[in-house]
Amino acid sequence: MRTARALASLVFTLIAFGGCADPRPTVPFTRFAELEIEPSQLAQYTAAVKEEMATSIRVEAGVLAIYAVADRENPAKLRFFEIYASEAAFRAHIASPHFKRYVETTKPMIRSRVLRDTIPIQLSDKEGLYEQR
Amino acid sequence: MRTARALASLVFTLIAFGGCADPRPTVPFTRFAELEIEPSQLAQYTAAVKEEMATSIRVEAGVLAIYAVADRENPAKLRFFEIYASEAAFRAHIASPHFKRYVETTKPMIRSRVLRDTIPIQLSDKEGLYEQR
Repeated sequence: MRTARALASLVFTLIAFGGCADPRPTVPFTRFAELEIEPSQLAQYTAAVKEEMATSIRVEAGVLAIYAVADRENPAKLRFFEIYASEAAFRAHIASPHFKRYVETTKPMIRSRVLRDTIPIQLSDKEGLYEQR
Repeated sequence: MRTARALASLVFTLIAFGGCADPRPTVPFTRFAELEIEPSQLAQYTAAVKEEMATSIRVEAGVLAIYAVADRENPAKLRFFEIYASEAAFRAHIASPHFKRYVETTKPMIRSRVLRDTIPIQLSDKEGLYEQR
């Protein structure tokens, strides 16, 4: 009886405090990108990238966030901040058919592209999505 | 009886579909910042900014997210991507006592700072926090 109770307590502890832990690692993989778009192609590019972002978030478990903004002074200069569950999730993303299609479609619309690999210092948001665990 | 039922139905509809709507506007205010820190001061700066970020998220309703990352090639080069509920929320943030204290404390640790006002194109994440409504 005592053994059964101890076992039940252990099972509860495992379930409550670790057995079903969030699969995201403590430190996600983050990346910045800066793109300058051909001004005459901006509407087409924006439509393509919005669709690619939405698809990635919907179908890829490891794509946690992709934020796209335009410079206020130069709307053809776009900046992206991306959060992946891991570097492997990022590698899977750039190998995905929808990402490859986006690259192919938008190649002639992009004047320049700078990619910056980064290391997260702290990712703070209202929902505490990326809090150190 | 019919009136009471209709009223109850109306109250339910208001609560479920609009009465308690999310107060965040459709288009949040976003900003990028690039800072280069004195390498010898990096640990002190990082501690100060992490505390300031955590405080802002905790006490300011309009500070939705502050993401801080370091360049992989140059850890003293930090990049920030910030999401506020509105431009007014951003103005309130930079006028807050904790932000002013952070600016005062870290001023001698910062070599250079570039701030970029931006316009959101699309902010996609797993929780759909900023979806167009």
